Amino acid sequence: MRQEKDLIGVHDVPDDVYYGIQTLRATENFPITGYHPHRELIRALGMVKGAAAEANMFVGSLSPAIGKVIVEASKELIDGKFDDQFVVDVIQGGAGTSINMNANEVIANRAIELLDGKKGEYFKVHPNVHVNMAQSTNDVFPTAIRIASLNVATDLLKALDELRQSLEKKAQEFDGIIKMGRTHLQDAVPIRLGQEFSAYAHMMGRDLQRIKQAMKSLEVINMGATAVGTGLNADPRYIEKVTERIVEWTNLPMRMADDLVDATQNTDAFMEVSGALKTLAVNLSKVANDLRLMASGPRTGLNEINLPPMQPGSSIMPGKVNPVMAEVVNQVAFQVQGNDFTIALACGAGQLELNVMEPVVVFNLLQSLDILRNVMRVFRQRCVEGITANVERCSYMVENSVGIVTAINPHVGYEVASGVAKEAIMSGRPVRDIVLEKGVLTSEELDIILHPYEMTKPGIAGAELLERK
Amino acid sequence: MRQEKDLIGVHDVPDDVYYGIQTLRATENFPITGYHPHRELIRALGMVKGAAAEANMFVGSLSPAIGKVIVEASKELIDGKFDDQFVVDVIQGGAGTSINMNANEVIANRAIELLDGKKGEYFKVHPNVHVNMAQSTNDVFPTAIRIASLNVATDLLKALDELRQSLEKKAQEFDGIIKMGRTHLQDAVPIRLGQEFSAYAHMMGRDLQRIKQAMKSLEVINMGATAVGTGLNADPRYIEKVTERIVEWTNLPMRMADDLVDATQNTDAFMEVSGALKTLAVNLSKVANDLRLMASGPRTGLNEINLPPMQPGSSIMPGKVNPVMAEVVNQVAFQVQGNDFTIALACGAGQLELNVMEPVVVFNLLQSLDILRNVMRVFRQRCVEGITANVERCSYMVENSVGIVTAINPHVGYEVASGVAKEAIMSGRPVRDIVLEKGVLTSEELDIILHPYEMTKPGIAGAELLERK
Amino acid sequence: MRQEKDLIGVHDVPDDVYYGIQTLRATENFPITGYHPHRELIRALGMVKGAAAEANMFVGSLSPAIGKVIVEASKELIDGKFDDQFVVDVIQGGAGTSINMNANEVIANRAIELLDGKKGEYFKVHPNVHVNMAQSTNDVFPTAIRIASLNVATDLLKALDELRQSLEKKAQEFDGIIKMGRTHLQDAVPIRLGQEFSAYAHMMGRDLQRIKQAMKSLEVINMGATAVGTGLNADPRYIEKVTERIVEWTNLPMRMADDLVDATQNTDAFMEVSGALKTLAVNLSKVANDLRLMASGPRTGLNEINLPPMQPGSSIMPGKVNPVMAEVVNQVAFQVQGNDFTIALACGAGQLELNVMEPVVVFNLLQSLDILRNVMRVFRQRCVEGITANVERCSYMVENSVGIVTAINPHVGYEVASGVAKEAIMSGRPVRDIVLEKGVLTSEELDIILHPYEMTKPGIAGAELLERK
Amino acid sequence: MRQEKDLIGVHDVPDDVYYGIQTLRATENFPITGYHPHRELIRALGMVKGAAAEANMFVGSLSPAIGKVIVEASKELIDGKFDDQFVVDVIQGGAGTSINMNANEVIANRAIELLDGKKGEYFKVHPNVHVNMAQSTNDVFPTAIRIASLNVATDLLKALDELRQSLEKKAQEFDGIIKMGRTHLQDAVPIRLGQEFSAYAHMMGRDLQRIKQAMKSLEVINMGATAVGTGLNADPRYIEKVTERIVEWTNLPMRMADDLVDATQNTDAFMEVSGALKTLAVNLSKVANDLRLMASGPRTGLNEINLPPMQPGSSIMPGKVNPVMAEVVNQVAFQVQGNDFTIALACGAGQLELNVMEPVVVFNLLQSLDILRNVMRVFRQRCVEGITANVERCSYMVENSVGIVTAINPHVGYEVASGVAKEAIMSGRPVRDIVLEKGVLTSEELDIILHPYEMTKPGIAGAELLERK
Repeated sequence: MRQEKDLIGVHDVPDDVYYGIQTLRATENFPITGYHPHRELIRALGMVKGAAAEANMFVGSLSPAIGKVIVEASKELIDGKFDDQFVVDVIQGGAGTSINMNANEVIANRAIELLDGKKGEYFKVHPNVHVNMAQSTNDVFPTAIRIASLNVATDLLKALDELRQSLEKKAQEFDGIIKMGRTHLQDAVPIRLGQEFSAYAHMMGRDLQRIKQAMKSLEVINMGATAVGTGLNADPRYIEKVTERIVEWTNLPMRMADDLVDATQNTDAFMEVSGALKTLAVNLSKVANDLRLMASGPRTGLNEINLPPMQPGSSIMPGKVNPVMAEVVNQVAFQVQGNDFTIALACGAGQLELNVMEPVVVFNLLQSLDILRNVMRVFRQRCVEGITANVERCSYMVENSVGIVTAINPHVGYEVASGVAKEAIMSGRPVRDIVLEKGVLTSEELDIILHPYEMTKPGIAGAELLERK
Repeated sequence: MRQEKDLIGVHDVPDDVYYGIQTLRATENFPITGYHPHRELIRALGMVKGAAAEANMFVGSLSPAIGKVIVEASKELIDGKFDDQFVVDVIQGGAGTSINMNANEVIANRAIELLDGKKGEYFKVHPNVHVNMAQSTNDVFPTAIRIASLNVATDLLKALDELRQSLEKKAQEFDGIIKMGRTHLQDAVPIRLGQEFSAYAHMMGRDLQRIKQAMKSLEVINMGATAVGTGLNADPRYIEKVTERIVEWTNLPMRMADDLVDATQNTDAFMEVSGALKTLAVNLSKVANDLRLMASGPRTGLNEINLPPMQPGSSIMPGKVNPVMAEVVNQVAFQVQGNDFTIALACGAGQLELNVMEPVVVFNLLQSLDILRNVMRVFRQRCVEGITANVERCSYMVENSVGIVTAINPHVGYEVASGVAKEAIMSGRPVRDIVLEKGVLTSEELDIILHPYEMTKPGIAGAELLERK
Repeated sequence: MRQEKDLIGVHDVPDDVYYGIQTLRATENFPITGYHPHRELIRALGMVKGAAAEANMFVGSLSPAIGKVIVEASKELIDGKFDDQFVVDVIQGGAGTSINMNANEVIANRAIELLDGKKGEYFKVHPNVHVNMAQSTNDVFPTAIRIASLNVATDLLKALDELRQSLEKKAQEFDGIIKMGRTHLQDAVPIRLGQEFSAYAHMMGRDLQRIKQAMKSLEVINMGATAVGTGLNADPRYIEKVTERIVEWTNLPMRMADDLVDATQNTDAFMEVSGALKTLAVNLSKVANDLRLMASGPRTGLNEINLPPMQPGSSIMPGKVNPVMAEVVNQVAFQVQGNDFTIALACGAGQLELNVMEPVVVFNLLQSLDILRNVMRVFRQRCVEGITANVERCSYMVENSVGIVTAINPHVGYEVASGVAKEAIMSGRPVRDIVLEKGVLTSEELDIILHPYEMTKPGIAGAELLERK
Repeated sequence: MRQEKDLIGVHDVPDDVYYGIQTLRATENFPITGYHPHRELIRALGMVKGAAAEANMFVGSLSPAIGKVIVEASKELIDGKFDDQFVVDVIQGGAGTSINMNANEVIANRAIELLDGKKGEYFKVHPNVHVNMAQSTNDVFPTAIRIASLNVATDLLKALDELRQSLEKKAQEFDGIIKMGRTHLQDAVPIRLGQEFSAYAHMMGRDLQRIKQAMKSLEVINMGATAVGTGLNADPRYIEKVTERIVEWTNLPMRMADDLVDATQNTDAFMEVSGALKTLAVNLSKVANDLRLMASGPRTGLNEINLPPMQPGSSIMPGKVNPVMAEVVNQVAFQVQGNDFTIALACGAGQLELNVMEPVVVFNLLQSLDILRNVMRVFRQRCVEGITANVERCSYMVENSVGIVTAINPHVGYEVASGVAKEAIMSGRPVRDIVLEKGVLTSEELDIILHPYEMTKPGIAGAELLERK
């Protein structure tokens, strides 16, 4: 055991750990979820600390001897060598000070080691004085959240685009399959299965743009703001330099906020991103719901498409296979919507110069990014790509539907068509037979008007007949 | 125009209006939604004001001459004679002071008239000194919210119970109809249509109990608390008396809070009630969703039941009838869930001695109560009561399903049954044929095991066969 | 009474009303909220109907004689002449068919009148055949929602920009006022009151951009999609023409969706807009919360600023003035967040070719737009513009704070500074005195380091002293 | 590697793992959150499986030889010996089938071992045929969720009651401390600090009752329901027995649902419990917010109370201590509210005979229970118990407030009192001086009326003076 000291007093710290007294206090104060900081957040903190050390060396505040080992230790953080030393809970009081101090202490102790010192010899490298030099939790933490989020988002956007392409491919594959369109779950008019998948692909395309747009707001950082955005204790040359170094370390197009006070206290960018993710989640859920409906059955449902079977569906019903990959999409969507709510509540709780609720924001934001990315990958690979269509079933339903009566509407008028529809529903007989019986259109005319493919394209089916008259 | 004066200054007030300067300022300050206070809230304010005047007369603080006309005017408020004088917006700053003052001013001016005075002659009856005597917005307003909510809730509970009974009646009517049960929207095992409606009825029964239980928390009021719950300026005999009088005026089992400070600042009772309404909303939505699914078609959906047609379903598709009564239930459910969110946010915004956000709470709470009551009435009358079943269609699907293989599970084991199921799905052939072909069970045994009604009851279908072996 | 007939049967309709049987049925089916369609939605429907009639005349489907009176009647709708004829409830089943039919029926009957016919003589102008020609609720309604929302949004953006400017102006006015910055509600380091208002203004600027960006997604419409987006029954020349005419009628940059199937079934654009409004709401709430905190008191709170008194604050406490204009902002923010929840639920309930929940979406979306616009106007005029600062109080608190110890941090190190802070807190003595007593800095040095204005700017206060050493 | 086989095909399974092919497929299908099932859920599954085996032996369906080892293995599950074998993700498709199969497979393989067999020799003990006998995921999983939730809830209720008691103790300790009451964050009338803590304690008491009440709904289980609640394949004697055995194994008052179909498809009980937790969360947040406000400062805030310092508050500002224990309460409250949203969405997604979204429900429900319990413990120990009051500061503010003018209201009338208040605010002078100057009350009268303690009790301060007149 080594002894460390802070404002509150003295505390034993196990010899072998890289974190120090403040981290330890945080673990005692916040035994909440049992979850530790996200790998990407640790990486991002390493980048911020390394970049800040370089900027501090550049302006001469930090001696090269100390700066060098801080940079070195920061790189090890990035490489994941100290992930097990990040022991604070994801939900914590104090605006992220505990996680910032966790990083400061781990880097300091590792840097001390690199200088052949022993952990805890903070006179060599001090967590606050050197590692946190010219920084505050209030600029470091939001900056690290942004970097981590952007890095996870890159993967998410890739997964989303692949899903979009996969849906687009299915749209082409299914372009010739005519099926019944339904509105209100009631028979409407024919549509092509490919058109449905194309609609999903287009929707995903909008999500892609929307999330990209929202992510841009995360590129704005407030390094140099220090405590409240006024930049107290931060050298103006450092302020300029540190963002430049962060761009270098992260390879991301980060830029300094125009107004550091605003950027330090306001968290609307996180709401914006989470809102875009929520919209994606709801849209994915719609696709999943549609697939589950179209694949319902096999005998007593719509049975228009088949989802690839991924696992036995029941512990009691033999042979049952369920749309589990669609269902997990729904559940991720619910989780993301709940997370968005938590994020909005936390972002709404800022007061004066700071929003101290950022820890719960980043926990939920990174989780949303993670699980959306993960679920889109397996949804594509294990569901969308393997979907097949029951062509005959689709076709049979179109031919026997009442909804096709809509196509004869322009030829006979809404009221006559209504009558035909009503009789078809009551009697259970095909629309075609009733029309013929009533003598309002000939068999040849009906062949033209009720041609399935024609009914799925813009225009009045059999428009030429109207003109002829 | 008459001139009135308050802390802020002098303001013209139209001669003919019963409200006064403070109401007028509120209309200028809060032109937000354009909606005026709920009829039941005005009624409740009348009851509170009348009861308070009686209690004040009882303890001798208020002269009978003045008290009598305040009581008289309060009764007119209850009767709805001054509804058009309640002109403040439902969303307003100030914790409800503006609506309390609206009531105080209208009653004062009406009382003055009853004393043959002219509106504005507040030396005769003063809105604050006399009508609001020993009261504060902080006790009057939450008390009025509670009374109004309980009154609307009475109707809601009636509508809910009628819906429950209607579902129960359908359960009996449909008890003999065997249909396919579905889990994951996939064929599962047979069930009776009556069992499904019975499940809905039981769920509604739980909602009934849950809402009743939650409403009880609204019976606790804080009259006598005055500004912060300490009862400053309220005679202890008045405090005792006023709740007794309120019971009389409202005919509701109201009782005084044990802790008036708590009761003045905390609004968890509203969250509790709204939470119970939210659960009802989600449950109603489930019923509506199921009905829409079972009624889907008619040709290209499940088509197990028919919802009564209430209106043409399409402006373009002749003969289309949609499940509009179920859809409006869904939409009300969404609204109620959104309202619950607003209520939770507002209830979470209390600070120290008061929650000033009560106006937006009562707006949403009464709306939720109203629209749930309204929608349950029409849903019952125009949908549930008229539902009919397509018995043959239901029966046909059971017989052709794969799910019935579950019943042979105990007789042949999970793996053999799985094989049968798989073959049935692949080949499209009936389970019965495949079992016979495999020779694992005889035709006579299958008659017993696959008897539809038996499969909808607890027990191993054909258990006697097992014992025989 | 006149008699009208539809798919369901015959129904009496009062002679003098312009709506017809389908509207009437809807009022009977949906007595939910009691609220009627928004003025802007009626206007938008007039624009869509007029534009569609023109496009239908252009392609020759609609005779000029009939088309002309439909156009005429549509213009009267736009002018508000038939607002009282829009009697369907805002929450309704049927995907908006009832409100579309309400428009169709009112226009048809008015058009019939213009042709000197009597209401109900639909052979002259038919609601479905003529007014709704080549249209479906499924393209008309979402298009009208978009137009209405864009029109209200224009006003909202104006109100938001005015608020932003007003905050910016205050930022300039208050730029010289030094006050204590607080993080965690605890004394932090000095900041200028102007910097705080500038942060608010910058945040509002982001909201402005965010909402503008989101509104763009509403410019995409699906006229010509008809029932499910395939354009069945719509002449391709009409499809092209109708959007062009809508641009003309609305003076908005509307354009046709690339994928009409997608545009007919998906409603993510509404979520996107509502999400941007939610972020604005949360941001406004933050400003309101800060103002309420800084104006708290006057005697027992922070009392740094004064909000203009708008109305007496209490029915019992004389002289009390409350921050009612800020409180109403909070409540609107809660309402908008609840509305956003409702909208997300409704947008998540789309199934296959349609989302039938649009009525509750548009009710909430237009309400959010309305109340945000309204509240920003009064908040600016009746609160922000009249804010004054208590300069001496602000200055006094800075001088007596412990937080200024941060500025001496770079000069004496974190640990020494911590000791000074601890002693200051314990003893209640000024930081300056303790530093002098400890002899770590001279009085002259402290004058430079603790200069208030310097502490609100980037850099190490007294950096020149460090260099000197 | 051993090979296992299911409906989908053959799959290698590592030799040493106790789970089997279905678990393995689930890990491949659902790499979503990376979190594994909750310890209490695994325990509960052990209890359910053990109890079911006993019931199956009792009715003679399961041979004692096999039953005995299943019981044995189930006990080991309960003891935590196989926690590391529960590898499925908390968010998974398939209604919990994967976690049920995970339990079935682990128990089967362990039971096989106990029979000296080798893992995978399912002919000895089969996961479906023996371990899952007469069960379905659809009765096992919701039952296990209920047991797990009740067990965590027991601890939560204990933590809540301890917090309540702690607040009550503080209420007594602080009963003599007079401080200013504030409404709208504006000076109102005096209150005792003890009254504030008493209000918190009473609120917590309501939460205690509310959660207890809600938990009761979890005591109703549907064992014996099998697939859809009809009890197919479950011996009626088993159905009766199994719940009795579960009571024995869990020591909880579980009872069989009256309607097994209802109990299998509806999840409103989870919403009910989550709703009660949400209300607790919002209430805790209110207490945390109040403490943060009252402890704000120390120099530039209200500074009425001191929260015990738990860790240094800033990485840059020396001496800063933040209310971290209150802040973590707020964040837990946000998380619980988000979780409640997710739960409501999932519970609203039930369709027909089942709600397949239960995995995400139980993940969020157990998390809410856990983090509320955890945070209440540390909040009590590390915050509430150590709070001290700044008596003089509190007293000073009361004496200098304007709000005390309310007490003279009954003696001089609302308008005169308003005038005094206005002058006090404008001039900054004490209320007392102005009253004396105006000559409306004597110094002796004011001593009686403005006696601080009197103002915090019901009644008109100085009522005897009124009567004298």
